[in-house]
Amino acid sequence: MSDRIDGTGNHAAATPPPTFADVRAAAERIRGHAHRTPVLTSRRVDDELGVQLFFKAENLQRMGAFKFRGAFNALSRFDDAQRRAGVVAYSSGNHAQAIALSARLLGIPATIVMPHDAPAAKVAATKGYGAHVVVYDRYTGDREAIGNALAAEQGLTLVPPYDHPDVIAGQGTATMELIEDVGELDAMFFPVGGGGLSSGGALAARALSPGCEIVGVEPEAGNDAQQSLRAGSIVHIDTPLTIADGAQTQHLGALTFPILQRELAAIHTATDDELVAAMRVFAATLKIVVEPTGCLGFAAVRRLAPQLQGKRVGVLISGGNIDLDRYAALLGG
Amino acid sequence: MSDRIDGTGNHAAATPPPTFADVRAAAERIRGHAHRTPVLTSRRVDDELGVQLFFKAENLQRMGAFKFRGAFNALSRFDDAQRRAGVVAYSSGNHAQAIALSARLLGIPATIVMPHDAPAAKVAATKGYGAHVVVYDRYTGDREAIGNALAAEQGLTLVPPYDHPDVIAGQGTATMELIEDVGELDAMFFPVGGGGLSSGGALAARALSPGCEIVGVEPEAGNDAQQSLRAGSIVHIDTPLTIADGAQTQHLGALTFPILQRELAAIHTATDDELVAAMRVFAATLKIVVEPTGCLGFAAVRRLAPQLQGKRVGVLISGGNIDLDRYAALLGG
Repeated sequence: MSDRIDGTGNHAAATPPPTFADVRAAAERIRGHAHRTPVLTSRRVDDELGVQLFFKAENLQRMGAFKFRGAFNALSRFDDAQRRAGVVAYSSGNHAQAIALSARLLGIPATIVMPHDAPAAKVAATKGYGAHVVVYDRYTGDREAIGNALAAEQGLTLVPPYDHPDVIAGQGTATMELIEDVGELDAMFFPVGGGGLSSGGALAARALSPGCEIVGVEPEAGNDAQQSLRAGSIVHIDTPLTIADGAQTQHLGALTFPILQRELAAIHTATDDELVAAMRVFAATLKIVVEPTGCLGFAAVRRLAPQLQGKRVGVLISGGNIDLDRYAALLGG
Repeated sequence: MSDRIDGTGNHAAATPPPTFADVRAAAERIRGHAHRTPVLTSRRVDDELGVQLFFKAENLQRMGAFKFRGAFNALSRFDDAQRRAGVVAYSSGNHAQAIALSARLLGIPATIVMPHDAPAAKVAATKGYGAHVVVYDRYTGDREAIGNALAAEQGLTLVPPYDHPDVIAGQGTATMELIEDVGELDAMFFPVGGGGLSSGGALAARALSPGCEIVGVEPEAGNDAQQSLRAGSIVHIDTPLTIADGAQTQHLGALTFPILQRELAAIHTATDDELVAAMRVFAATLKIVVEPTGCLGFAAVRRLAPQLQGKRVGVLISGGNIDLDRYAALLGG
């Protein structure tokens, strides 16, 4: 595997892009380790919007987010030397927990580089899985440089949060399961941060539901993917200020961008207020706790409902990890 | 069916008690109408408590609570004359919504008698299903008398919230599904209000997992079931003051009491503070919204964990219907 993941994280040039075959292989690897999360439906929400919605509830995944899929898939491909030396990862939160938990399950030492303002629940959970946490300033530091330096100095293997074929393939398994469970869809809505979930999901959706329109949704304050697709190349932005902390990414990846460029029918944005409104519907009607980033897809569906009348639409709920006090404040607000 | 449900609700004397065969028949009737809700697990919670827990998530059921099962089962057995005349029900909330929704699905007119202080979300949902709502004072009025009077005056069929064989059998299907999905259990924890969920569940658990200890849990402020089992006869209490509004019942039923007397290994209580603590774990770790009554089983498991080490324990989460502002206040408190 060392030809696919090297110590510098600089693998894209040498790596063929992942395909649906990689998603299928990932599904075999994570079987029995990841939850096959339920698909939730609500006739009340369907009636209100005039859309037939299928929610893939990855907030009910292990460690509370889809990220476990990609992390476990990537780490399960480490060779013996990599397993002994350990893994390093940088993350705003959910990837950190995913790597930490996967590493513990596979007996691999883990070092996680996290921003100083990551939600306390995410930091605590990461430490709880036995990982060593290194903190940096989200607005001044460069997590990739820190991760790469740790990898080089200590011989660790870096697993980036999204721009890696095994991570992308692992994330694609959520969409594969959704379509296996409910059949073909007219459209599929994904949150877009770095593009791992959406590009992996796009591979699965295109293979299993060829006519499906694949739609990305990102925070209005951080629409780098929208800008990138318009520009035809990866646009870098400053770290956006949004409650969707899982989508506070500055740019798409060298692997995820071309997949999204090829597969996305559209990319939309959602405001923080729209995310909170969606979060309240999730709590009041679907009875689930969804973190702001996980509300992106549904927020866009609610806005675009007039154009989706009568359609069968999948919505990927990415995760449910949010500090409880913060959650209560957003719900009660 | 008119020999089983008469206009006065006074059926118990003439009605044989339900058996597991009735639960199986109910499962056939509700198939395709009720959700087969997921069984949720959390290795984190298991590790913290030392217990292997299986949560049957009836908060993810249609209209947000298990009550849909019993209501739909009962209404689907109405004869043509009963369907034309309509149904009347009294309820603190979830049974009301369940009857209202089932009636709408089956084309039966519905009248619901609800307490003046029922959660606004429950009243709104009941009206939203097209039911006619009659309000009474929970602390001074007698809902059974009001329901019986409406039944007698207007020729409606009364479906009581728990003390009815078809209701009990329908509620039992949740436990049947749980054990079908995860196999035999060492113990099974139920919230106890009027005893419909727990007695129906006890029929299923005894049949499918004969060695299973069946445990009831009720609010500490309203331990009428505990008193009844100690006394050997049904004890009536004043309407208890507890946040568990779904278990603010004053007494067990003529049908539910003997089943609980025969099947329960123990009955425990939980304080409102313990319910809130359980509610917070459900939100933070399982990522689900659970109403206070739905927290009863888990609250008791958390208290009794030292006696449950290494056991396989089922927990019935009864529902997730709670006003969002109230929920936010309880979580944030």
